[in-house]
Amino acid sequence: MDADALSKAFVEHYYSTFDGNRAGLANLYQEASMLSFEGQKIQGSQNIVAKLTSLPFQQCQHSISTVDCQPSGPAGGMLVFVSGNLQLAGEQHALKFSQMFHLMPTPQGSFYVLNDIFRLNYA
Amino acid sequence: MDADALSKAFVEHYYSTFDGNRAGLANLYQEASMLSFEGQKIQGSQNIVAKLTSLPFQQCQHSISTVDCQPSGPAGGMLVFVSGNLQLAGEQHALKFSQMFHLMPTPQGSFYVLNDIFRLNYA
Repeated sequence: MDADALSKAFVEHYYSTFDGNRAGLANLYQEASMLSFEGQKIQGSQNIVAKLTSLPFQQCQHSISTVDCQPSGPAGGMLVFVSGNLQLAGEQHALKFSQMFHLMPTPQGSFYVLNDIFRLNYA
Repeated sequence: MDADALSKAFVEHYYSTFDGNRAGLANLYQEASMLSFEGQKIQGSQNIVAKLTSLPFQQCQHSISTVDCQPSGPAGGMLVFVSGNLQLAGEQHALKFSQMFHLMPTPQGSFYVLNDIFRLNYA
């Protein structure tokens, strides 16, 4: 699987998990993982998922506009940059967002999210 | 200088150079550097600057809305995530953009851009 296909597969998995079972995202983060969510910095899988599951909306639907990826250096990491729309239940208009992930390889041949930066793009 | 201050200083330097003397950005990239510009992948300082200087506008002005940064791992790198507006000369409306940089340390104690991903956020 090449890097573009892998990053697209990650993005589909991440947002379908976010939209369907947010607590299930815990598996994608580790203790060293960092999230910057609208400027708020959070570290560690447990804290990150606590933040994501406490966001003030229950139902949401991400739709992806673009996915870019690049290798991040000799450690085998991968940078994934996403833009898209976030539709919250009961809201008339979708919100635009941009998000980047830095994926690092695990000894088991998978990836975890070391860095995650999320921003809404206000109109 | 802490990471937040360093990333803000980088961002100010990058966009003031872009807006004032685009060819001067060559110093910030190296041969391994990668740029994804609206989905187009370009590698190497010379090719990246050739792309940036050939963009179909002469005058532009970036204004920055948000800057987020995180350390990218044990190699001493730093991820910088920017959102802002790009005003092109002669255009009525500014364009929204998001951009991420992966900065890596140089032996001289400075940083270069290893990864650069740019996207316009179409309204």
